[in-house]
Amino acid sequence: MEMTVNKEMVAVAEKLTPELIQGAAEPKGSIEVIADENAIQGWRVEPKRDPQEWKEGAYGKGDSFVLDFGDHLVGYLSFSVRPVGSPPDAPLKLKLVFGEMPCEIGEPFESYDGWLSSSWLQEETMFVDILPAEIKLPRRYCFRYLKVEVLDTSGKYKAAFDQFVCTTVTSGDVSKVESLPESLPEDLKLMDRIAVKTLQDCMQTVFEDGPKRDRRLWIGDLRLQAQANYYSFRNDELIKRCLYLFGGMRLEDGAVGACIFEKPHPHVDDVRFFDYSLFFVACLYDYYEAAEDRETLEKLWPVAMKQLEIGIDKLDEHGIVKLGVSNGSFIDWQSELNKETPSQGVLIYCLKRGMALAATLGLEKERAYIADQINRTTKAALDHLWENDLGVFISGADKQVSWASQVWMALAEVLPQEENAALMDRLFTQPPAIGMTTPYMFHHLIEALFLVGHRDKAIEQMRAYWGEMVQDGADTFWELYNTEDKKLSPYGSNLINSYCHAWSCTPTYFIRKYMI
Amino acid sequence: MEMTVNKEMVAVAEKLTPELIQGAAEPKGSIEVIADENAIQGWRVEPKRDPQEWKEGAYGKGDSFVLDFGDHLVGYLSFSVRPVGSPPDAPLKLKLVFGEMPCEIGEPFESYDGWLSSSWLQEETMFVDILPAEIKLPRRYCFRYLKVEVLDTSGKYKAAFDQFVCTTVTSGDVSKVESLPESLPEDLKLMDRIAVKTLQDCMQTVFEDGPKRDRRLWIGDLRLQAQANYYSFRNDELIKRCLYLFGGMRLEDGAVGACIFEKPHPHVDDVRFFDYSLFFVACLYDYYEAAEDRETLEKLWPVAMKQLEIGIDKLDEHGIVKLGVSNGSFIDWQSELNKETPSQGVLIYCLKRGMALAATLGLEKERAYIADQINRTTKAALDHLWENDLGVFISGADKQVSWASQVWMALAEVLPQEENAALMDRLFTQPPAIGMTTPYMFHHLIEALFLVGHRDKAIEQMRAYWGEMVQDGADTFWELYNTEDKKLSPYGSNLINSYCHAWSCTPTYFIRKYMI
Repeated sequence: MEMTVNKEMVAVAEKLTPELIQGAAEPKGSIEVIADENAIQGWRVEPKRDPQEWKEGAYGKGDSFVLDFGDHLVGYLSFSVRPVGSPPDAPLKLKLVFGEMPCEIGEPFESYDGWLSSSWLQEETMFVDILPAEIKLPRRYCFRYLKVEVLDTSGKYKAAFDQFVCTTVTSGDVSKVESLPESLPEDLKLMDRIAVKTLQDCMQTVFEDGPKRDRRLWIGDLRLQAQANYYSFRNDELIKRCLYLFGGMRLEDGAVGACIFEKPHPHVDDVRFFDYSLFFVACLYDYYEAAEDRETLEKLWPVAMKQLEIGIDKLDEHGIVKLGVSNGSFIDWQSELNKETPSQGVLIYCLKRGMALAATLGLEKERAYIADQINRTTKAALDHLWENDLGVFISGADKQVSWASQVWMALAEVLPQEENAALMDRLFTQPPAIGMTTPYMFHHLIEALFLVGHRDKAIEQMRAYWGEMVQDGADTFWELYNTEDKKLSPYGSNLINSYCHAWSCTPTYFIRKYMI
Repeated sequence: MEMTVNKEMVAVAEKLTPELIQGAAEPKGSIEVIADENAIQGWRVEPKRDPQEWKEGAYGKGDSFVLDFGDHLVGYLSFSVRPVGSPPDAPLKLKLVFGEMPCEIGEPFESYDGWLSSSWLQEETMFVDILPAEIKLPRRYCFRYLKVEVLDTSGKYKAAFDQFVCTTVTSGDVSKVESLPESLPEDLKLMDRIAVKTLQDCMQTVFEDGPKRDRRLWIGDLRLQAQANYYSFRNDELIKRCLYLFGGMRLEDGAVGACIFEKPHPHVDDVRFFDYSLFFVACLYDYYEAAEDRETLEKLWPVAMKQLEIGIDKLDEHGIVKLGVSNGSFIDWQSELNKETPSQGVLIYCLKRGMALAATLGLEKERAYIADQINRTTKAALDHLWENDLGVFISGADKQVSWASQVWMALAEVLPQEENAALMDRLFTQPPAIGMTTPYMFHHLIEALFLVGHRDKAIEQMRAYWGEMVQDGADTFWELYNTEDKKLSPYGSNLINSYCHAWSCTPTYFIRKYMI
C-alpha cells in the first residue's frame, strides 16, 4: 500500500506527543468469580471475607487467586514475589490473566473461538528464575481484575506475594474537568463520571478507540472523543496532534484513512470507510469551533476539501451515494444494515461543516461549490430516498428502512425543522426493523433527538441505554451493548469485546452540553 | 534454615566472579523432527532440502518451523520479526520451544508428568505488540533446537523472520585447551571434544551442574569438573571461587552444603549429603595439587577438617558409617542402592586426602588424628563389610552387593594393591545385581580401573558408555545414560533430563591424564 505522506504535518503531530500522567493503584482485595445465570454475562463477583487474604497465602502448583483493583485501569503492572520454604530450586512459572470484566477471569481463554485475533486476550505466562523478585511487566494492560495462577514451583518451595501495583497512564488531566451542579440527578452524575473515566482511559499519546483493543486512533472514535473533550478535559492539543496525524498520512488517493498506528513510526492503516474519511471535515470543524486555532484550520483545510471531493466522487447520476464493495461505510456494527442512505446523511452533514469552514477562510469559490453539492445531495435524498407515504428514508435497492438512515438524515437536516422532529418521533411510534448495535450509533440517535428539540426523549434514551450499562456494573462504558442480548459480540465472543471504548464516552458531552 | 556464613570467604569468592566470554551462533538450517522407533528416544531429525527455507516463509496462525543450530549452545536468543501483508492490527503471539534434544521438540511439554518442576522445560509464550521488532529474550537458554510457532497474528498479516542469533556465554576459554596428539584414535579425540564442550557449557560464573537444569553449583559435580579442568581449561580461579563459596556458606553445624545458589545473593541450599560434604576435602586436595595455592589451602583447611569430623561423627561403635534417613548420601541415582558401604569408601578416600593436606600444612596433631581414623575405618570395613568367601564388600543389614560398594572401596584403597585389582576383575566376572545409573558413578568405575592398573578395561568401558552416547548423537554428554534403557529418567520423563551435564565431562580427564 502506498501512503500519501506530508512530513511537515507528521512532524507537527510528533511534537505534540504528550507526556503521560502517572498514578498508582493497588488491589482492593481478593474475590471469587462465580458462574451465575442471573449476573451480567453469567459471572458474579464475590469479595472474600478477608480482602487481604491473598497476601497471607503460600501458593504451590495449581494454586491461584483473583484480585479486584476496584476500578477500570490502564497501565503497567508490577509486583513482588518471594519464596516460602526451602531455597527455590526451580524457576517459578506464573500465569497472569487480566480482565476488564469478570467473564475474562471466569472463562478460559483457550475457549475463545471468535474471529478477532486471540492475541488481544490479555495474559502472560512467565518464568521467574530468581526469587525473591520485583517484577515490572513491560506491556500495558487494561483491567480491573487480575488472576494470578502459580503453574509450577517445585516440591521444595511455594510462592507468596506482597504487593501488586498498577502504574496508570493517561493524557487526560481529571483536575481540569469541572464539577457538575449539585442539582443534576444522581444517576446522571454517575453516568457522567463513568463517561469521563471512559474518555480518560482512552486518552493516551493519541485518542485510542479502546485501551485494551485496538489501542489505536480511529477517526470515528476521535470525532466523539473530541466532542466530549471540549466539555471535559480540554486537551485540545491532543486533538490537534490527531488531526495532523490523519492529515499527514493518507491513502494513495489522498483519502483520510480509518485509523493510524503510532509505532514503530506513525503510519496509516489500509482500512478506508466512506463516512470515516468525511469525518475529518467534521473533526476539523469541531476543533476550530472549540479551539479557534486558525493556523491549524488553514494548514489542514486542503485535506478537508479533498475528503469532500472524494465523497462527491461516489455520487451517481442522481446525486445518491453508491458504495462499492471495497469502499464500504462504517455507520454501525450491523451486518444487515444497508449503509448508502446513512452515508448520504454523513456526506450532507460534512458538506455543511465544510461550507462553514470555507466561509470562515473566505474561500468563496469553494464555499459556492460546496453549497451546490449540498443542494444537489439534499434534493437527491428527497427525490430518491424519501418515501412520503411512510414518512421514512429508504436505503438501497431493497428500500430498507433502518434507524441509521432516519438518524443520519435527521443529523444532516435534510427535512425542514418540524418534519425533522416528526421523523424522530416516528422512530418510536413505528420503529424500523433494522435496529442499532453500538453505543456509537446510539450516540447519533441521542444527538439527533437533542437537535430536533426532543430533550426529554434524548435523556430517556440515555437512561435506557447507558443507564442500564451502569446498572450492569460498568466501570467504563463498553464498545458493544445490546439491552436485549447482553452477551452479543460481533466478534464471536464476549472475551474479546472492549469494555472501555471511546465511542461510548459521550454521555458527558450530552450532559455538559445540553443538560446543565 | 540457619546458615553458617563467613563473610570474608564469600567476599573472596565474589571478587573472583569471572567475566563471561561471548560468542554468536546462528541456525544451520531448518529441520523436521519425526517420530521414529529406531532413533534415539524415538525422534529422528531430518534436514529440510533448503536449509534457509524458514527465512522465506510468512507464518500465520498455527504455522511453525524448527531450527537446528548445529551444536549445543548456552546463551541468550535474539531474533528479528517483521509483518507481511497489511499493517499489523493485533499483537503477534509467539511460542518458542528450546530443546537440547529432538524429544523436547517432538513431545509436547503439556505431556510432561515427572516429579521435577515443569518450570525447567524451556519455552516462552510471548506477545509482540509492535512490528517489525528486534527481540532479545532476557533469560538464558540451553539448546540446539528451536521451535518457533506462531500462535496468532490476525487475518490481515503474517509474520516473517530474518535472523536468529544465540549470544553464547562461558567462562571456559577453549583456546587454552591443548590439542591432542595425532596418534590418539579418532573416536577418543571425538569423545574428548564432546567432553570439553560439555565442561565448557557448564562453566559460567560458577561450575554449574547443567546449564539447562539445575544451573547450580553442586559439589559432587564440581569435584569432577575441577579434575577435568586441570587437564583442559585451567580456569583454576573459578575453582577457587567455588571452594570459597562452599567454605563461606555452610549448614547450621558447619557441614558443607550439597549446592550453592548465586542469586539474588549467594546462599547455600538446605540439601546435605554425607558424601558431598566430605568431597570438600577432596576438592581442596585436588586444587592444591594442581594450583599449589598455599594461601587458599591455609584459609580453607579448617572447613575441610570440620567435614572430616562431621563424617567421623556418623560412625557407629564398630567404626562403620550409619546413615540416618535425613542424612543420606548421594553416591548414584539408584533408589535400590544401599549407600552405607560406598559412603564408608568415600570417608576413607577423603580422610586420606585430608591427612596429606594436614601433613603439607605441618599440622601433626591433626595428621595423627586423621591417620588413626583411617586405620579405624579401614579395619572396620575389613572386619564388618568384607565377605571373604565371595570376595566382595557388602552394605547394610541385607548385605547388599553393589557395583558402587566395590568401586568406592577400591578408590579408598582398603585392600592391598593386588587384591584391589582382583576386586575390580570380579566386577566383570561376577557382576553384582545392583548396577550403576549415572555417568557420575561410571566415572568412579573408570577411575578405579585406572587406579588398579586395568587401563585397557578402563578404555573399553569408556568406549562402551560414553562412546555409545557419541553413537547416539550426543553434542554434549548427558546427565543420565543407560545403554540398556535409553529413555530412562529418574525424574519420570526424558523431557526434563539435562543433556549437558557436568559430571559426564570426565572422558577428557581420563584421556589427558592417563592416555597421552
